[in-house]
Amino acid sequence: MSTDHVRQHTITAQVMDHPGVLTRIASMFRRRGFNIASLAVGLSEIPDLSRMTFVVEGAEGVVRHVSAQLERLIDVVDVRDITESNIVWRELALIKVKADAGTRGEVLELTNVYRANVIDIGVESLTMEISGGRQKIDSLIELLRKFGLAEVIRTGRVATLRGTLIEGEDDGLFQ
Amino acid sequence: MSTDHVRQHTITAQVMDHPGVLTRIASMFRRRGFNIASLAVGLSEIPDLSRMTFVVEGAEGVVRHVSAQLERLIDVVDVRDITESNIVWRELALIKVKADAGTRGEVLELTNVYRANVIDIGVESLTMEISGGRQKIDSLIELLRKFGLAEVIRTGRVATLRGTLIEGEDDGLFQ
Repeated sequence: MSTDHVRQHTITAQVMDHPGVLTRIASMFRRRGFNIASLAVGLSEIPDLSRMTFVVEGAEGVVRHVSAQLERLIDVVDVRDITESNIVWRELALIKVKADAGTRGEVLELTNVYRANVIDIGVESLTMEISGGRQKIDSLIELLRKFGLAEVIRTGRVATLRGTLIEGEDDGLFQ
Repeated sequence: MSTDHVRQHTITAQVMDHPGVLTRIASMFRRRGFNIASLAVGLSEIPDLSRMTFVVEGAEGVVRHVSAQLERLIDVVDVRDITESNIVWRELALIKVKADAGTRGEVLELTNVYRANVIDIGVESLTMEISGGRQKIDSLIELLRKFGLAEVIRTGRVATLRGTLIEGEDDGLFQ
């Protein structure tokens, strides 16, 4: 693969839980012209350390360079580009869709097929949560669009290396 | 409540999907001395608009001021502090925990009780996904700690206003 090939990269960073870390990291991506397609920031297994998962678009060589620069930032403990690795990943989405007595049944059928969970029902709408790969979530959102999407709130991708020896795409074996 | 009372605020921002938006928002929180406890950035229901969900710690009056400032930033379409509102919220976590033939059964029992899903199994570890409120996820992580946590990757919180008239804490009614 050419080192100039532009693609999506999944990068995880373990950082000290101090104010300003996110700003420094986001600035570095920005100066390099990267768009951050998704970002998830949350606690890690170690107290006072957060873990950030970035999905960014950029050329291979540049991503490698930026990762190395990130690792030298204050409060950044560890940076890994796990794009090429054998990983398992998930996103979470809350989807609030219009649903009244006339359409609720059809919306609930889709919810079941996609193994989404209804977490709130009102007279005119319902909210479901769904976790999975991006394409699965995209496809449910597209199917629900005709009912009227009131709100879609998505987390960024979170990912980790597989413990299995099975190579290749996430095939949903354990869903 | 005093306007100086420091607490966690959940703030959602709808933004144009342009490079630099995140940097500008994170910088503004930082200049005001806020720590960003969690952050989720993903697509919204409208093409070219992303939605960010921040959980920040700060005094009531300052948060209101910062929200107003955020709304005036370029590429920021809409900012809402939904802390006081009747909301439903979720986080997603991937938990990779050590588990071999001797301990796997016990780990899987906990997985079932918490309605987590196993998404990868190796010889010495397994990875599960769990979605829910922060306390539920915290409590599973604490129970799994004794087996050895290999990695915990959490998304930030995503939240939306309830369509129901039921007030109060999320009671997991629809789980």
